Amino acid sequence: MPHPIERPIARALMEATLNAYAERINAGDAAGVLALFAPDAVIEDPIGSPPRSGADLGPWFADTVAFGTRITPVAPIRGSHGDEALLVFDVEFTPPGSPRLRIRSADAFRLDADGRILSLRAFWGPDDMAPA
Amino acid sequence: MPHPIERPIARALMEATLNAYAERINAGDAAGVLALFAPDAVIEDPIGSPPRSGADLGPWFADTVAFGTRITPVAPIRGSHGDEALLVFDVEFTPPGSPRLRIRSADAFRLDADGRILSLRAFWGPDDMAPA
Repeated sequence: MPHPIERPIARALMEATLNAYAERINAGDAAGVLALFAPDAVIEDPIGSPPRSGADLGPWFADTVAFGTRITPVAPIRGSHGDEALLVFDVEFTPPGSPRLRIRSADAFRLDADGRILSLRAFWGPDDMAPA
Repeated sequence: MPHPIERPIARALMEATLNAYAERINAGDAAGVLALFAPDAVIEDPIGSPPRSGADLGPWFADTVAFGTRITPVAPIRGSHGDEALLVFDVEFTPPGSPRLRIRSADAFRLDADGRILSLRAFWGPDDMAPA
């Protein structure tokens, strides 16, 4: 295994942002979630779907909160030797007209030097979703 | 949450490759691990270190096996709606002259339509490594 190359972002700052992301979603704080993102941030959730950015992010997190989304981490945060970190979790939510669902998911984040989210890519496929 | 877009790779094929990756490393089968990769595959382990490819992969996995590497998955595999999947695990290994170490890690794979690995990017940072 190679030695560390560089640490452009403090690990504590990475973890603070990822934990705040989960906590603010769970608290129904859509504005607080949005404030964690850089202005030009891009969300690909799930990986393989069209990326969202800019004015699309507000409605995205308004829906997230309206669906009663609850995130439960299932493993400690993984960092990197770069500007990326990973949050592994199960998530429950209730879309309109649907029973409550659970997805086994993991969000891969890229952060700037201030700990703001530059990109979020969500690992989950059709087989990772089931009734809660 | 959006609906599925496409499924270019069968989930079962994704999982077979990722499980074989862990099983062959744990079995000390360096040639078998290497056979899971496409000829032009790229490994970035950890994320933030220089990518390896081509003739560098053989020695990489020879070292992996020589270090007594053992992978223990800690969550079910996560897929995607594209060609990517995620293996979340703890890994123990003993580099030369070192005590045995444990890393909290996660490997993000991109696969081709035949289930061969095109890229592997490993999420782990300095703070994810400790004595085993």
